[in-house]
Amino acid sequence: MTPYSIGLDLGGTNLRAAAVSDEGRMLEKVSGRTQYWEGREAIIYDMVEAIETLRARHGVAHLKGIGIGVPGFISLKEGIIRNCNNIASLENFPIREEIGRRLGTRIILENDANAAALGEKWIGAGRQVDDLVMLTLGTGLGGGIISGGRVLRGGHGMAGELGHITVVPDGNPCGCGNQGCVEKYASATSVTAQARMLGLGDESLTARDLYEMAKGGNEKAQAIYNAMGESLGILLAMLINAFDFPLYLIAGGMIAGWDAFAPAMIAEAKRRSFTFRTEDTRVAMAQLGNEAGLYGAAYLPFCE
Amino acid sequence: MTPYSIGLDLGGTNLRAAAVSDEGRMLEKVSGRTQYWEGREAIIYDMVEAIETLRARHGVAHLKGIGIGVPGFISLKEGIIRNCNNIASLENFPIREEIGRRLGTRIILENDANAAALGEKWIGAGRQVDDLVMLTLGTGLGGGIISGGRVLRGGHGMAGELGHITVVPDGNPCGCGNQGCVEKYASATSVTAQARMLGLGDESLTARDLYEMAKGGNEKAQAIYNAMGESLGILLAMLINAFDFPLYLIAGGMIAGWDAFAPAMIAEAKRRSFTFRTEDTRVAMAQLGNEAGLYGAAYLPFCE
Repeated sequence: MTPYSIGLDLGGTNLRAAAVSDEGRMLEKVSGRTQYWEGREAIIYDMVEAIETLRARHGVAHLKGIGIGVPGFISLKEGIIRNCNNIASLENFPIREEIGRRLGTRIILENDANAAALGEKWIGAGRQVDDLVMLTLGTGLGGGIISGGRVLRGGHGMAGELGHITVVPDGNPCGCGNQGCVEKYASATSVTAQARMLGLGDESLTARDLYEMAKGGNEKAQAIYNAMGESLGILLAMLINAFDFPLYLIAGGMIAGWDAFAPAMIAEAKRRSFTFRTEDTRVAMAQLGNEAGLYGAAYLPFCE
Repeated sequence: MTPYSIGLDLGGTNLRAAAVSDEGRMLEKVSGRTQYWEGREAIIYDMVEAIETLRARHGVAHLKGIGIGVPGFISLKEGIIRNCNNIASLENFPIREEIGRRLGTRIILENDANAAALGEKWIGAGRQVDDLVMLTLGTGLGGGIISGGRVLRGGHGMAGELGHITVVPDGNPCGCGNQGCVEKYASATSVTAQARMLGLGDESLTARDLYEMAKGGNEKAQAIYNAMGESLGILLAMLINAFDFPLYLIAGGMIAGWDAFAPAMIAEAKRRSFTFRTEDTRVAMAQLGNEAGLYGAAYLPFCE
């Protein structure tokens, strides 16, 4: 039998777990059954059960480890989620220790955006490089930085919190306490909020609807996507100037609107980065979609 | 005899070279004699002569290598300076190859701000950590990033170009092609230019004069230092969110005005970084002054 690991991705609405071979082949995938509003105990139970199911079926002899991707600011040392807009019941709870205790083994905890970046590095759009930054554009904006083939964690496990980097110093207030965070311009939540303020739709308006409006010639809709592209361009220029990595991946549901925001993004990044203008540096779409975080979580035991 | 290396720092007006032991002890220091306006051949000759002088005196038996710090954007692969405001005659010239040829040995070329950060990591304010970012505030703003005890170079050797990161998207135009670069707000050149525009002095006004005016109660002078602090705070917050390193050092001649700009810098960084507000993260003055780049250049052969 081939060595394998178990990865678990605690996504926006429910969880998925998978057994993945050391060569990146998906052996089996299971989904959780719990709704997050059922609370912490239900979520923890669900996570443990999904992992136990896979472990029972594939055995412990070749199991190299268990990796878990969770949303929010993760404190590496304590193994807790410090701040999580999506799943408040898990905040400041020793999740790594508790799941490890119930499973009777060590687990590796990682931020979901970091895990997604690692997945793309392993078997996705980043498999040719060892250094990349990935921006995941969904309800929020998550960042993941891979340096030398591993997640750049920083001193407290909080590196790569790119969504809350300032791109408009006097811009829109953000829940994080700052204003003008890039997440306020380049996420599904922010573009639809701006569209509603401009009278382009009501609460039911989606980023996809807005994209169709932009493509259909609606100038206000296109202006929102241009502003999104410009804010991403400022962020990309910063990252390129700081890291000089060869590859920057854009991921998440919002890349469906790539042709509405990418031209402004690339133009702005070129204008603001000498390195981007003069050196071989790629900005590209991620390839693994929703599976990136699951693969990345599974890769954690192989790259530690 | 103890192992040693030779470091050379091509500074703003002339060059210095030193023989340094593997424990960071300065064995001997020499200065160049050439003025940069004498042109490329004179500079190269001067660099080679300084190194040869030290090598002849301390011998080749224990010489571990030669490191050179130079200003500007360095292309790592080709060993050339791509863009150098200070010494235009060295631009796009294969300086690493030429000096190596004349000395008959390999040399290590590094950006001067990276070398300074490395020097502080070796024997200065950063010697307790393996990960730090250093901002050198002088006529321009140079950045150096040390990750895992080594210079973060990036794919083309151009990582750490922090002076040209955008902090005011619609701000002052910069020679790099961008506008609102942090260097336009937080360098001696930029604060004195702003002061002249506000009628605070003429071409002879220095950043030190402006600092004395601010400390003496001049509100316009203090406002310039506040804007400097705020722009540095935006940059620091961005770096802390991206890297989550434990230490950020501020270096260069401008730190003489620390108490005029640091309060605004720290307040702005805290406001804009969740990580800085919640985790143990230090922003501090560098310790080695002008010697940082010289020590860092000398350390290059020991950490490659």
